[in-house]
Amino acid sequence: MIDAGRLWQRLMALAEIGDTGDGGVNRQALTEGEIAAWRLLIGWAEAAGMRAATDDVGNLFLTRPGSDGSLPPLLLGSHVDTQPTGGKFDGAFGVLAALEATMVLPEPTRDVTVVAWMNEEGSRFAPGMMGSEVFAGVRGLAEVRAARDAAGVSVGAALDALHGAFPTLPRLPLGFAAHAYLEPHIEQGPLLEQAGAVIGVVSGIQGKITWEMVVQGEEGHAGTLDLALRKDALARFAAMAHAMHQAAAAEDAALKFTIGQVNLVPNAPSVVPGRVVFRIDLRHPENAVLESFARRLETLAREHAAPCTVAIRRMVEAPSNGFDAGLQARIAAAANAIGAAAMPILSAAGHDARHMASRCPSAMIFIPCRGGVSHSPLEWAEPAHVAAGAEVLARVAAALAA
Amino acid sequence: MIDAGRLWQRLMALAEIGDTGDGGVNRQALTEGEIAAWRLLIGWAEAAGMRAATDDVGNLFLTRPGSDGSLPPLLLGSHVDTQPTGGKFDGAFGVLAALEATMVLPEPTRDVTVVAWMNEEGSRFAPGMMGSEVFAGVRGLAEVRAARDAAGVSVGAALDALHGAFPTLPRLPLGFAAHAYLEPHIEQGPLLEQAGAVIGVVSGIQGKITWEMVVQGEEGHAGTLDLALRKDALARFAAMAHAMHQAAAAEDAALKFTIGQVNLVPNAPSVVPGRVVFRIDLRHPENAVLESFARRLETLAREHAAPCTVAIRRMVEAPSNGFDAGLQARIAAAANAIGAAAMPILSAAGHDARHMASRCPSAMIFIPCRGGVSHSPLEWAEPAHVAAGAEVLARVAAALAA
Repeated sequence: MIDAGRLWQRLMALAEIGDTGDGGVNRQALTEGEIAAWRLLIGWAEAAGMRAATDDVGNLFLTRPGSDGSLPPLLLGSHVDTQPTGGKFDGAFGVLAALEATMVLPEPTRDVTVVAWMNEEGSRFAPGMMGSEVFAGVRGLAEVRAARDAAGVSVGAALDALHGAFPTLPRLPLGFAAHAYLEPHIEQGPLLEQAGAVIGVVSGIQGKITWEMVVQGEEGHAGTLDLALRKDALARFAAMAHAMHQAAAAEDAALKFTIGQVNLVPNAPSVVPGRVVFRIDLRHPENAVLESFARRLETLAREHAAPCTVAIRRMVEAPSNGFDAGLQARIAAAANAIGAAAMPILSAAGHDARHMASRCPSAMIFIPCRGGVSHSPLEWAEPAHVAAGAEVLARVAAALAA
Repeated sequence: MIDAGRLWQRLMALAEIGDTGDGGVNRQALTEGEIAAWRLLIGWAEAAGMRAATDDVGNLFLTRPGSDGSLPPLLLGSHVDTQPTGGKFDGAFGVLAALEATMVLPEPTRDVTVVAWMNEEGSRFAPGMMGSEVFAGVRGLAEVRAARDAAGVSVGAALDALHGAFPTLPRLPLGFAAHAYLEPHIEQGPLLEQAGAVIGVVSGIQGKITWEMVVQGEEGHAGTLDLALRKDALARFAAMAHAMHQAAAAEDAALKFTIGQVNLVPNAPSVVPGRVVFRIDLRHPENAVLESFARRLETLAREHAAPCTVAIRRMVEAPSNGFDAGLQARIAAAANAIGAAAMPILSAAGHDARHMASRCPSAMIFIPCRGGVSHSPLEWAEPAHVAAGAEVLARVAAALAA
């Protein structure tokens, strides 16, 4: 049995790192906050006899040794980075539930390793899931190291600073073999709450395509340049964005379309904008619908660009995927054993488990979050649901580690 | 006669402060760059026997004493701050032409004071023209000191740092009486170049209204929240901005409409934007047209806000104004005397002279800039035009100061 009080206290303690004062947490990837979170996690793990390690892409591994070190380890975890306006549970619940489940396991045969993946959120450095992508071989380390944040700091420099803060931590090889991967997470949607369920047995993750688009125009003086002579990048962006939102609203309700980031150059009140850089996030559970609407968006961008130009670059192309059926059955059985109402659910949000699913049998355990709200200071999970999710994980992990 | 070579060398020397490496200058208001520019100007002025002073709002005054110190001084000048992607001439030409003209005057009867107004551009701290507005009593010092830049630094703190860098500089009273005000400036439009004229006798400045509008929605997860349930602030901004640009394009060609600055919160790729803050710059030479289209923009903002809300705040309301007829006649006569082709011109851009015109007889002298380009690294004025503008100023100033 897990210690529900200890788990809840640790969730609240971790949430103090990056506390925004309104219930939220701002602990973005590879910041001082993430370094402080690592120190807290490593302290708890080492006090329980576990050993800490990292890898070249800045994933954190906390291992409870099994009796047979030659077997591939069981991996459990999620991430500890947040959005700039993140909450207390997204990512943190998965890592701390994994730590709790690992600590209370009966003596395992194989190693059991808690993982905190680097930069799941992708808000400081885009795109997200860099740690699991590089670990799974989906993206190269050099490409990831070259990405920069808004201040011009590269992932490479920030990674070196992270590793420099933990100079004695051993490095595990990228992509080491794992027996299975389990990721607990809040649902980030309203379905479990609406159904009165406590455990979501995640069947898969909806597909996702993201873009960076750059509208290139020409700067000019707001008070003198005739409108007819302008190449106003913001005017063309507004036309594109409006057309895209209208098209998305006319699609089926499963389509999710978001322009979440927009940056103007020079972004000065009396200068006609010369450039607009923006990011699109598109998701749908069916790959055919996803790709078809993706092409529609690219066409709309081109149609509304003149007299500016638009450069279109896909950043992430992640088709929808299904999780391991055997693990799903084990999760449902464990929920049943503790009397927690369980239901199958498709994940609308992306998770690191998407990439691990190509490396080893993988699955996810969802718990409800209030009102389906996430990426917000209002994000909340009930203590009883947190405990149930960790207990289900502990039971499945015990069987897999034996 | 002014020394055209010295004036050109000083323009190029000043442009090295904030040099962006591509021909442009980034020397925004109250930055280290502006402090360095002050040191350069004060050094040149003091070497010529002039005395430096400031006032509570951070305007710089460089005075050549006249034989009768009891007379109100003649004021000549412009500003030395630039846009983030500014050029070498906007503002700097006016201040350095004023310094050159003052240095070569015959012994003046009244004091002749070169002024560099604080924050004309309004890019770091909005709105612009803070120095001349507070000097002229259009805006209060406390209101101006409370404005903050994107990093949260207040004008008050930045002003104190500027004054702290020059601890021995005396303070002149805000709004001291002046005999007249003359401001030389590049046209920032193509009309002089197209007409083959060298001197623009500025008849007035077109009216301007600026806004800060805030679209308030609700943040949410890009992958999970149904489109129908969203309050997406960026989607509503795009609808508003597109409608506004379409309406502006259908108006008469004298209307200038710009959305130059847009900031999203939290501006993260996978978060539905909860807030968009944007600025509008609207100009027209006729006050009735200006106000009528201003109301149209406010109506469009309200019509496209739902299900978000929009807060509408006018930042600047500056009706069009005319300059002193006597000074215009003197400028035209001086241009004629040196054989420089002159023409009357309406200023499409706003200038500090707008505010001085309510305090004393005021006028502006324009010179062409290549292709009408300004607020850009490509901004350029011919050395012969720079010399002609300064010479015309020197002749008018000599008559007014005698």
